[in-house]
Amino acid sequence: MTPILHDDRYFGPDVRQIEVARELYRAAKDLPLVCPHGHVDPRLFADPDYSFGTPVDLLLIPDHYIFRMLYSQGVPLEDLGIPRADGAPVETDHRKIWQTFAERFYLFRGTPTGMWLEQELAEVFGVQQRLDGESAQAIYDRIAAALETPQMHPRRLYEHFNIEVLCTTDAATDTLAHHRAIRASGWSGDIRPTFRPDAVVNLDTPGWREEIDRLSEVSGIAITGYPAFIDALEQRRSFFKSLGAVATDHAALTPYTAPLSGREASAIFERALRGEASPDDARAFTGHMLIELARMSTEDGLVMQLHVGSWRNHNPLIYARFGRDKGADIPIATEFTRNLRPLLDAYGNDPHLTLILFTLDETTYSRELAPLAGHYPALRLGPPWWFHDSWNGMQRFFDQVMETAGIYNTVGFNDDTRAFPSIPARHDVWRRASANWLAGLVVRHVIDLADAHEMMGELAYGLAKRSYRL
Amino acid sequence: MTPILHDDRYFGPDVRQIEVARELYRAAKDLPLVCPHGHVDPRLFADPDYSFGTPVDLLLIPDHYIFRMLYSQGVPLEDLGIPRADGAPVETDHRKIWQTFAERFYLFRGTPTGMWLEQELAEVFGVQQRLDGESAQAIYDRIAAALETPQMHPRRLYEHFNIEVLCTTDAATDTLAHHRAIRASGWSGDIRPTFRPDAVVNLDTPGWREEIDRLSEVSGIAITGYPAFIDALEQRRSFFKSLGAVATDHAALTPYTAPLSGREASAIFERALRGEASPDDARAFTGHMLIELARMSTEDGLVMQLHVGSWRNHNPLIYARFGRDKGADIPIATEFTRNLRPLLDAYGNDPHLTLILFTLDETTYSRELAPLAGHYPALRLGPPWWFHDSWNGMQRFFDQVMETAGIYNTVGFNDDTRAFPSIPARHDVWRRASANWLAGLVVRHVIDLADAHEMMGELAYGLAKRSYRL
Amino acid sequence: MTPILHDDRYFGPDVRQIEVARELYRAAKDLPLVCPHGHVDPRLFADPDYSFGTPVDLLLIPDHYIFRMLYSQGVPLEDLGIPRADGAPVETDHRKIWQTFAERFYLFRGTPTGMWLEQELAEVFGVQQRLDGESAQAIYDRIAAALETPQMHPRRLYEHFNIEVLCTTDAATDTLAHHRAIRASGWSGDIRPTFRPDAVVNLDTPGWREEIDRLSEVSGIAITGYPAFIDALEQRRSFFKSLGAVATDHAALTPYTAPLSGREASAIFERALRGEASPDDARAFTGHMLIELARMSTEDGLVMQLHVGSWRNHNPLIYARFGRDKGADIPIATEFTRNLRPLLDAYGNDPHLTLILFTLDETTYSRELAPLAGHYPALRLGPPWWFHDSWNGMQRFFDQVMETAGIYNTVGFNDDTRAFPSIPARHDVWRRASANWLAGLVVRHVIDLADAHEMMGELAYGLAKRSYRL
Repeated sequence: MTPILHDDRYFGPDVRQIEVARELYRAAKDLPLVCPHGHVDPRLFADPDYSFGTPVDLLLIPDHYIFRMLYSQGVPLEDLGIPRADGAPVETDHRKIWQTFAERFYLFRGTPTGMWLEQELAEVFGVQQRLDGESAQAIYDRIAAALETPQMHPRRLYEHFNIEVLCTTDAATDTLAHHRAIRASGWSGDIRPTFRPDAVVNLDTPGWREEIDRLSEVSGIAITGYPAFIDALEQRRSFFKSLGAVATDHAALTPYTAPLSGREASAIFERALRGEASPDDARAFTGHMLIELARMSTEDGLVMQLHVGSWRNHNPLIYARFGRDKGADIPIATEFTRNLRPLLDAYGNDPHLTLILFTLDETTYSRELAPLAGHYPALRLGPPWWFHDSWNGMQRFFDQVMETAGIYNTVGFNDDTRAFPSIPARHDVWRRASANWLAGLVVRHVIDLADAHEMMGELAYGLAKRSYRL
Repeated sequence: MTPILHDDRYFGPDVRQIEVARELYRAAKDLPLVCPHGHVDPRLFADPDYSFGTPVDLLLIPDHYIFRMLYSQGVPLEDLGIPRADGAPVETDHRKIWQTFAERFYLFRGTPTGMWLEQELAEVFGVQQRLDGESAQAIYDRIAAALETPQMHPRRLYEHFNIEVLCTTDAATDTLAHHRAIRASGWSGDIRPTFRPDAVVNLDTPGWREEIDRLSEVSGIAITGYPAFIDALEQRRSFFKSLGAVATDHAALTPYTAPLSGREASAIFERALRGEASPDDARAFTGHMLIELARMSTEDGLVMQLHVGSWRNHNPLIYARFGRDKGADIPIATEFTRNLRPLLDAYGNDPHLTLILFTLDETTYSRELAPLAGHYPALRLGPPWWFHDSWNGMQRFFDQVMETAGIYNTVGFNDDTRAFPSIPARHDVWRRASANWLAGLVVRHVIDLADAHEMMGELAYGLAKRSYRL
Repeated sequence: MTPILHDDRYFGPDVRQIEVARELYRAAKDLPLVCPHGHVDPRLFADPDYSFGTPVDLLLIPDHYIFRMLYSQGVPLEDLGIPRADGAPVETDHRKIWQTFAERFYLFRGTPTGMWLEQELAEVFGVQQRLDGESAQAIYDRIAAALETPQMHPRRLYEHFNIEVLCTTDAATDTLAHHRAIRASGWSGDIRPTFRPDAVVNLDTPGWREEIDRLSEVSGIAITGYPAFIDALEQRRSFFKSLGAVATDHAALTPYTAPLSGREASAIFERALRGEASPDDARAFTGHMLIELARMSTEDGLVMQLHVGSWRNHNPLIYARFGRDKGADIPIATEFTRNLRPLLDAYGNDPHLTLILFTLDETTYSRELAPLAGHYPALRLGPPWWFHDSWNGMQRFFDQVMETAGIYNTVGFNDDTRAFPSIPARHDVWRRASANWLAGLVVRHVIDLADAHEMMGELAYGLAKRSYRL
C-alpha cells in the first residue's frame, strides 16, 4: 500500500528540476511557520478547555471552500449542517453529513481544497486511506478519536506545527479579551491581533451605526463627529499595538483612493451618523479613509494590508438564508494604477509606510502590481490570495510578478485561513511551489544553487518576518 | 519516410508525463464522439445525394479560420473564391485557389488550424505529404478522388467517425425540414437541432422585422405584441424538443442581464415592431430576454448556452463586400460577475436550469467564471471557445479553471464547427490535451492514476453527455 | 571555477527540448542584429571621440530599470547620482555609487535586468565574477580599464556586435545633425532615424507651443494653423526618409482613434495655439492624428509603430525632483478592439500600410491583438515590450499570440533600449527564448525540425528585416 502523500509531490515534472526542488525544500521545510495574516479565532488559544467538536464541526461547517463546491453540485447547505439565519432545522447527524461529503470528495480532484484536506487528514490525523463513500465512517472514527486526545488542543497543535507567530484578524471594536487572556495565561505561543476597522470605516456596512456606538464604548471617546472618529481609531490602534499587533487590514471593493477635505469628510460622516449617507458617500469616505489610515501607519508603524476586488454576498438567497462567508463571494476586475495614485502620491515615498496589496484579479500582476511595487518604496505585494492560493496560482504569481518586482518586493506567504489545523498543509504547498519555481530557475541557469537557497529561505520565512516587522 | 502524424503528438515534453498521457489517451481515444454544440448543416445528413463539391468547396471557402489568415497576409478574398455579396466575379479555378493556399500553408505553422487540417488530410483523405506549393496539385487530386467515393458521404463519415450524437444550431424560425427528413429516412444517426433565437431576440439584428414575420408564420401565432412573442418562442422550443433538441444557444455582445417589467418589455417590443427601437432598447431587451429564456429552460428543461464577447463584423469593408462570418469578428473584454447577477438571482439556485457559459476573454476564467461555477448550482463552464480552442488555450483553461471549479463544473468538449470532416481532429486535440494535463497531475502526485482514468473518461465523454442531458 | 554564463542557459527544463533548442540557437546566434526600434543616442556614432564616461555613467545613471528597483528598496536616487532638476547636489563618487549598487545586486535575481547585466559584464567587459559588495571595486576597475580602450568606441562595438542596422528614435523637430554627421563620416555602420512626432501631436505635452515653433523653424513652414501643421509633418517625414528612416513611432495613453472633420481639427489646433486646448481637445486631436499619420504612411511608406498603455510619471515627487523616464511609468489596462476600429476602418485593408502594435497589457494578446493581426492586412504585432521584454514575458507572448496570429503577423525582436552595450544580451535572450519555444513544438511534434529552422531564422532576423522594410 502506497502512502497517500508522496515525498516529491507537486515537484517537476522534469526530473532534474525535481532533484533541485527536493534539495531546496528539504532545507526549508522545517523552518518555523510565520503566519502574519489569517482568521483563526483567538479563543482557540485563550480557552484551556477548547474543543474542536466533531470532525464535521472542525472540517466542514466552517469551511466555505468545501461546501461551496458541494453546493455547486446540487447539495443543499442545510444537508451539510450549515446553520440557517432563521433558525430553521438543518441536518444534525454529523456522520450523515460526513458521508454526503465523502461520497462527493471526488469533486475536489486537482483542487487546492482537496490537496490541503488530504494532507491534513494524513499528517494531523494519521489517515492513510483515500476519502470516499466506503472509507467515510472509518475515517470519521479516526478523526473523532484523535480529537479526544490532549495533543489536539490548539496550543499543543501550535507547538507541534512549529508556528513562530500567528496573527489573528480583529474588529476595531474588539476588546481583545481572548488576546489578553492568552497573554495572562503564561503560555509561550505568540498570538497577535490585527486591526481591521472595515465595519466602522465602510459606511455601507450593515449595522455601521451600532458599530460606531461600540467604538465609542470601547475607546471611551464619544464619537459625535469625524475628529472624534479619527481619535478613536488612533486610540484603538495604540491599544492593539500594546497587545502585540504589527499590522492593520482593510477590505474594499476597489482600491479607489482620493483625499477629502476635513470639511467634506466631516459632512459625510455626520450624514452617516444621521443614517443619511448615500452609496456615493460611502465610496468617497472609504477612498479618503484609506489615505488617512496610511497616514496613521506612517506614524505608528503598523503595516497596512489592503485586500480588494471581492464582490461579497453575490447570491442574495444564500445571504438571506445563511449569512455572509458562505462561498458566494465573487471577484471582479480591479484597477490599481489610477486608483491608488492619490494614496501613493501622499505616502508612497514614505519610508515609514509598508502597504501590502492583495488582488483577486491576476491580470494586475504583471501589468500594474509588479511595476508599482518595483518602484514605490512603500509598496509590497502579498502572496496569491483566496482562489489563487493554489499550485497554479502560485506559478502564475511567480512568473508574472517576480521578473519585474523581484522577490524582495513580495512578502512570502499568508495562510489567510480560519481552519487552524490546515495551516501546515497550506504553508507546505507554498514551500513546495517556491522550491519548484526556484529549481526551474537553477536548471535553466538563471540563478545558481547558492542564490536559490537564499531565496528559498526568504520565501519560506525571511520575507514574511521582515515585511511584517515581526 | 516518417508519417506526418506522430502517435505521441502534443504530449510532453517530459518523458514520464508522455508515458502516462499515452496510457490515458489510449483508454479514451475510441470513445464515441459526443457533439453537443456546432454548426454543421443538417442538409449533409438529410440529402442522400449530398456532395461536398471540390476540395476547395469543402476545405477552404467555408472556413474563415483559414481565409482570415491568408487575408491578413495580403491575399484578396476574391482570389480564394469567396463569393461577393454583389455577385461580382471571383476566382473560380479551384486548382488555382488550392495552389494559392498551399503555397502559404506555412503561415499556419504552430496554429490549431494547421494542426486540424494536417490531421484531417492524413486521416480522412490518406494524404501522407506536407502541403506546400509543390505537393499542392497531387494532394488536390487525392482529395478530389476521395470525394467521389461513397465512403465520403456525410452519413458514412458520421458512422466512420464514431459520432454518437451531433447537435446542429438552428434559427428559431427554422422549419427543421432537414431534421424531419433525417428522422423520416430511417438512418440511425442521431442528429438533433438546437434552438437559437438570436435573430428574433436581439432587436438590432439586421432583418429583425422580417424574422418576426417568419416566426409568426412558422409558429402560427400572430406576433402583434410581447405576450404573443413569448408564446411563439415557447411554441418553437416545444417543437424543437419534439425533434430531439436538448439545448438552446444565445449570442450576445455582453452577458448583461436585467429584468424588465411586463409593461416595459411590451413597450420596447412594440417600438421595435414599429421600427422605432433604439440601441438602448435593444440592449435592455436582450438583457431581459436572457432571464426570460432562463425561465423557459427551468420549465422545459432545455440546457441554455450563452456565447458572449465577440464584436461581429469588425471590418465594414469585408462585411459590405462578403457578408458575415468572414474572419472579422474580434473579441472584447467581458464582465460576468456584475452582468449575470440578475439572471443568477432569479434562477442561479434552480436545480432545473443548466446554463453553460462561453467566453472569449480568458481573464475571466480564474477571476469570475470558475468562482461563479464553483458556487451556483445552475452554472457550468463551456470548453475553450473559438480562438482559444487550441493546445495552449486548453492548457490555460485547465490551469485557470479547474483548481477553483473542479472538472465537474465543466462540460467536456464542443467542436463548434461547420467543417464536418474536421470533427475527429478537433476532438482528438482535446483528448490529447486532457490526457497530457492529467498526466502532469499524475507525475506530480496531485492525483493518482485511477482518478486520472476516471477524469479522462469524463473529459472525453461523460461530462458532455450528462451536462447536455443526452 | 565555473563560468557565469552557461552555454545552455534559459533552455529547457526538458533535456530533449534543450538539445533541439541548442541546435536551433546555434544556427541563429551569429545572424546579424537587426535593431529597428530603440533609443540609442546617435551622437555615440557621430562623435569620433565619444566616451562612455565611468562605469556608473554607462551602466547605472541612464538605466531606469536598475535604479527603480534600488529606489523601491529604499535607496534615494540622489545616492545613485541621478541628477536633480533643481541642480541640488547628488552623490558624485562613482565608486561609492557602484558599491551601493553591487551590495544590492541580489535584488535582481531572476529578473531580466539582472540577466542582461550579467551577460553584458561577462561578454563585453570580460567579468567572470558575480557582482556583489565584495567584488564591486575589482569589477569597477575592470570595466573602467576596458572603457579606456579603443575597442570600446561605439563604432567598434557596433561592428563587434555584428549589428546590421540600428534605428534611433528622434523628435519630429530634430535636425538629425548627428545622423548627417554619421553619413558624412564615411563610416559603414547603418544608423537610421525614426520619426517620432509625439511632442507636436499630443497637445498636452509640456512645452507643446515651443515645439510647434521649433517645427516651424526646422521645416521652414510657418505653422499658423492645422493645414500648415500637416504640411510641416509631411515635410519632416520626407526629410527623415532622405536620411534613411523607414518608420515612425507614436506613443499614446490609449489606442483611441476617431476622425475629426477638417474644420474640427482646425478649431482644436487653433485653440491649442492660443493655449486654450482642453484635455478633451488633446484626446480628440491625438485620436484624429493617429488616423492622419496612418494616411501619411500609406503615402510615403514609412512603417507606423504605436506604443500605448503607459501612465507616464506616476510619481509626482520623482517627476518634480528628477524629471521623466525615472522608472515611475506604470501600465494601465488597454482596449484595442473598439479603439482602433476607426483607424482600421480607414486604412486596415490598405496594402501600403504596416501598423505595428505594442502593448503593456498582456490580456490583449489572445483576446484582441492576435485576432486583429490575424485578420487585417495592415496590422503586425511588436514583440513583448518593456516590463514584458523578459523570459516569461516572451513565453506568454509565444503561447498567447502565435496560435491565432501565426508568427508571420509578428515582427521579430526590438531591443528598444538606450543602453547600447546591452543590445547583444537582449537579442540573445530573444533568440534563446525563440529557440526554446520552437524546440518545445518540435519535441511535441507540432512542427518538424526543418520548419523550426525556418521559423528560427524568421524570428531572429527575417521578420524584423522585412516588416520594417529594411
